[in-house]
Order: sequence, then C-alpha cells, then structure tokens
Amino acid sequence: MRTLSVALDARSYPIHIGTGLLADPGLILPYLKSKRVAVITNTVVGPLYLAPFVAALRERGLRVTEIVLPDGEAHKDWPTLNLIFDGLLGDRCDRSTTLIALGGGVVGDMVGFAAASYQRGVPFIQVPTTLLSQVDSSVGGKTAINHPLGKNMIGAFYQPRLVLADIATLGTLPDRELKAGLAEVIKYGLIRDLPFLDWIEANLDRLLARDGEALAEAVERSCRNKAEVVAADETEQGERATLNLGHTFGHAIETGLGYGEWLHGEAVAAGAVMAAELSRRLGWLSDADVERVRRIHERAGLPVKGAALGADRYLELMAHDKKVSDGTLRLVLLKAIGRAVITSEASTADIRAAIEACC
Amino acid sequence: MRTLSVALDARSYPIHIGTGLLADPGLILPYLKSKRVAVITNTVVGPLYLAPFVAALRERGLRVTEIVLPDGEAHKDWPTLNLIFDGLLGDRCDRSTTLIALGGGVVGDMVGFAAASYQRGVPFIQVPTTLLSQVDSSVGGKTAINHPLGKNMIGAFYQPRLVLADIATLGTLPDRELKAGLAEVIKYGLIRDLPFLDWIEANLDRLLARDGEALAEAVERSCRNKAEVVAADETEQGERATLNLGHTFGHAIETGLGYGEWLHGEAVAAGAVMAAELSRRLGWLSDADVERVRRIHERAGLPVKGAALGADRYLELMAHDKKVSDGTLRLVLLKAIGRAVITSEASTADIRAAIEACC
Repeated sequence: MRTLSVALDARSYPIHIGTGLLADPGLILPYLKSKRVAVITNTVVGPLYLAPFVAALRERGLRVTEIVLPDGEAHKDWPTLNLIFDGLLGDRCDRSTTLIALGGGVVGDMVGFAAASYQRGVPFIQVPTTLLSQVDSSVGGKTAINHPLGKNMIGAFYQPRLVLADIATLGTLPDRELKAGLAEVIKYGLIRDLPFLDWIEANLDRLLARDGEALAEAVERSCRNKAEVVAADETEQGERATLNLGHTFGHAIETGLGYGEWLHGEAVAAGAVMAAELSRRLGWLSDADVERVRRIHERAGLPVKGAALGADRYLELMAHDKKVSDGTLRLVLLKAIGRAVITSEASTADIRAAIEACC
Repeated sequence: MRTLSVALDARSYPIHIGTGLLADPGLILPYLKSKRVAVITNTVVGPLYLAPFVAALRERGLRVTEIVLPDGEAHKDWPTLNLIFDGLLGDRCDRSTTLIALGGGVVGDMVGFAAASYQRGVPFIQVPTTLLSQVDSSVGGKTAINHPLGKNMIGAFYQPRLVLADIATLGTLPDRELKAGLAEVIKYGLIRDLPFLDWIEANLDRLLARDGEALAEAVERSCRNKAEVVAADETEQGERATLNLGHTFGHAIETGLGYGEWLHGEAVAAGAVMAAELSRRLGWLSDADVERVRRIHERAGLPVKGAALGADRYLELMAHDKKVSDGTLRLVLLKAIGRAVITSEASTADIRAAIEACC
C-alpha cells in the first residue's frame, strides 16, 4: 500500500493507494467519529462492491445505513442529493455519522456536498472506484452538484477524512471510463510535471492494458501533484485553478450537449487540445507542442476535437464559468508543456479561432 | 452607531447597530469584493426597503442584482433557495459577487446558505430587519434550509463579512414578530447574563413600546452575548449549543404543526418554559425560578405552553434533533437562572412529564 498525505493543518488527511483495500475495514475505523456510518453508492457500483463492503463494516460492530443513487452525471442534481438527506434523516443519522462515498466522481462530489451540508457538516470518507475519481475528484475537497445553467455551480470546499483508492476496482471499469480517467492523469503532466508526462507517454500501453503496477504508479503520481496543489491553495485563489486545464472548454461541451452525453474526462481531453491550440495562438506553444498534446490524448483513445456546438454557443457557455471574475473570463493555458498559467490575455477573437480550429 | 466585533481570526467581522444605517451605503462598500452585489429579500420586506436601498447602492456605482423570495418559514426550502441560484446564474453573477440578505431570519438563513454554496462560496452581508434576526440569527454564521423531516437540517457554518442592524426597520415590524424576537433576547439573560435579564425585566414595557434607545440597548447586549459564544465555539462543539435553550422543544412544535404555524420565537418561548420545568424536575430550579421564566415570557406576550401535539409526538420529533449524538438526546437546561448547561441527564420519563406539565 502506498500512502500520501494532503497537508491542510488540522484537516490533513491520508490517501491510501493499493490493491484490495476495500476488503480491509481496519483502514477506515480510525477515521470514524462514532459507530454510525452511511455508505452511499449508485446502481452501477452498488451491485459490484456494496454488499461485501457493508458486511465487513458490520462485522466490526458498525451500524451502517445504505443509500443507492441513480447512476450518471445527469443525476448530479438536487433531487438526487435529496435522496441522501432522505436516507440519512429516515434512518436518524446524527452529526457523528460518517458518510462514505463508494463510487466515481459523481458519487464523490454529491456525497461530499451532502456531508458538508447535512446538519451543517458531518465527516466523510472517499472510496473512489474509477480512475478519474482516484486521480482527481476524490482528493482536495471540491464538492458540488450541477444546476441547469452550469456545472458544479452549487457546492462547497469540504475535505474528506480519508481517501481509499483500491486499484482492484479499476478492473471492472468500462474501457471508456478508464480512458476518460487518463485525461486527468495526462493533465498533471501538462500543467506541472513534465517527467510524469514523459512517463505516461512511455507507459500508456501498460495503463490501457490495466497493468496494476502502472495504474498504482499513475494514481500515486497524480495524487501527489493534486495534494501539492491543494495544500498550497485549498480554495482556489490562485494555483489550484491550473488543475482546470481544459475544463472551461470541457464544461461548455458538457453543458451544451446536456450532462452525461460526453464523459467529463472526454470533454476535458478535447478542452485540453483547445487550450493548447489557443496557447499556440498566443505564441506560447509550438506546432509540435500542440501536436504532442493532441497525440497523447489520441493514443489514450480520447476525443481531440470539441463537440460541434458552434463558437457562439461555446463563448456563451464559457461566460458562465466559475473562473469568470468581475466579468472577465480567465483561462488556464500553457506557457510551455508542463507549465500552466491562469490568464485573461486571450482575446475573444483568439478564443473563437481556437474553438473553430478544434471542432 | 454602536459597533461590536465577532472575533474569528481572519474571518472576524463587525456588527453595526443604529438608526437609519440602511440609508448609508458607505457602511457596506468596504466589505465588498467587487462592484457586483445581489440583494435578496422577500415579498414583505422588499416593498418597504428594497428600492431605496438598491438605488443608494447603484448611486455608488455598484451593479445590483435583485431577487425577491416568497415570505415565510414555509418557504425556507430547496425550491426557494433555488430561486436565488436561478437569479444569480441568470444574471451571470460571478465568484466576486457579494450577496446581501435584506430581511428576517428566514431570508438571512437562506441567503447565507446560498452564499456558502454558490460556486462553492461567495461573500455575504446580513442586513437583518426583524428583532429576532438582529439579536440572533444574523450573527454567528449558522445558515440552513428546512427538510420535511427536520428544521435547519441542511446548511453550513458560514460567516458574513458584516452585519448591519438598522433599528429603524423595527418600526415596521408587526407586533407579533417583535414579541417573537424578545424570546431570543430573554434567552441570553436566562442562559448566561443575569444582569441583562434584570435589565429586560425592568425595561420590558419600553421594549414593547418600541423605544429606540431600549431596542438598540437590547440588540447590542444580545449581540455581545452571541458574539462571545460564537467566538469561543464557532461550530457548536460545546458552549454554543446553550444558545439553543428552548429550541429542541420549540423545533418539535414548529415541525409538528408544520413550518410557519407558530413563529420561531413563539416556539422558543414555550420551549424555554418547558426546559425550565424540566430543570426543576432535575432539582436545579425552584418553583419560583420556573415562575420567573414563565412570567417574563407572558409579560412579553409570548406563549408559555407548548402546542398540544401529545408527548409521544414531541419525543419522536425531538429524536430527530441535531443535538442528538450517537443516539443520545442532549438538552439545554438551566442549572440556575443565568446558567445553562448541555446535558443528557434527563430521563425520557422526566422529559415526558415536563412536556405534559406545559401543554
């Protein structure tokens, strides 16, 4: 088992990475506030992992509430969040109850926000079961639900007590989701870790073949990057925004098509290529750099062109982005491969041209 | 103008108390993050104060979004909260937008939770226009909405940047709401400030006659008590729970009758008498003490008996209270007049007897 730490003073917490961790409740027990837990999962992950996980917790004397949500980004909304509150209140879960998110990014984001809001805050633990959630969304305390007018618009910064990434769960992940997760892995290389980008390029075939050692290495190095950024800037006043490379374009795709049409990682992949193209137009990347960005995503089986929404619609959707400040759109772009910046330097004409070049 | 401070390190903020403060935007400007604000009020307070307040802000060059909610505790729910998000997103309010709550406790609680959750957190300012919100709910960062299974079950601890209590707004307050506010004023005397209780008893007629100086004094001394408690225990790990004297019984009344039937302060008044009666049964208060508690609420025109829900229903509703920890109901009771404690010492039989004696 590999263990990292997210350093946030009194709210610091460990990330355990390894194979078969789900079977060992001993890893979870030290992080509970009482003997009451609520395990929240969805209709896809539940049938695979819920029963043995809950049985193991009950064997240790815990009282467990089970809540199963509908699957998918389309359900990352208030009515589904309210199913969690209904379940917790129906079972009289009190303030000492620890919520455990068992699933991918959508489950983790929703359970995190439910934990932040239930009785004004209860502890929670992330047990991410997808590559995307293991390398990105389970770490760092960003929680949210969507609003019809924008993705992740309603949420909280709320840190888990523990992240438990069981590499074995990646064995049941559909190919398309594995690839979507790789988009966020690649992102760390692009924004701040050139040696990691080199490593990914050298090991991409092993990752696609689900080599356990390669996956554990990718998860660890991704989480290490994420933990460093989050420790330096928990509430995204600065550097943390660079983790959103490709996300402003990507969110426009997700919102424009309706949530759930493209996977988040797929939208981020296309968005990263668009950001690279825009960076080239600002004179920061070479043609070869852009091709490198395009090529690694293509090799990972990810989209390298945006959805054909039309540039006007992209610009309209991007204007709703959370990174808009005082009316100005800020974008995460690349000064070089391995070095992201947050900038308002791109003109609307440049952004439009980059969108048109990549759709 | 009287000014107090809530001492919470980097998140400390002032409370300004005075007459006519609403007309002076200069008090608000230093606390804004940008020139964008959203003023959120309801259909009762809006017609009285919204137009001149917004006009004054616009004169200072601010861009103002106006959102008017339906009035009342019955609307302290998700659909109404979502009206705030709809308004903010529809007007493209970004992360630098400051939300201003103009209204009573329900508006303040909802705007606070909206501010905590919108784009994972934007600044907010409380402009309480009722006695109850000026002396209690606007200070201390408790924000929430109700759930059909319990009051204030979904929310956040989220502090405002500024509280502006304009005593002039109490001039338009219905008598019933003024009296409901007095329940929380009396509460500070009962739980921790015997000299203040003596002062209230001596000045109750002036308060009921809306004497401006007496009201300002009551608001200041109440806020001073609240600020001290919040500074010592922001997230209610201990002492802060004593502010909930009468609230566990009171919430049962509010939930049992349906939100909005009794005013919150009315339910708290009856609840405080029930808590006093229960304290007597534990041997902590004398018959005369209980009579003193009953008498001051009665003089303030407040209910001194609970709603006739039946003891079983009270106990059932109280089991949902947020102060339940690991299955045990904790109550705020009085060791003496002026000294509250949080205790699990009361047996169900005692609680039942106290309920039956007070309904």
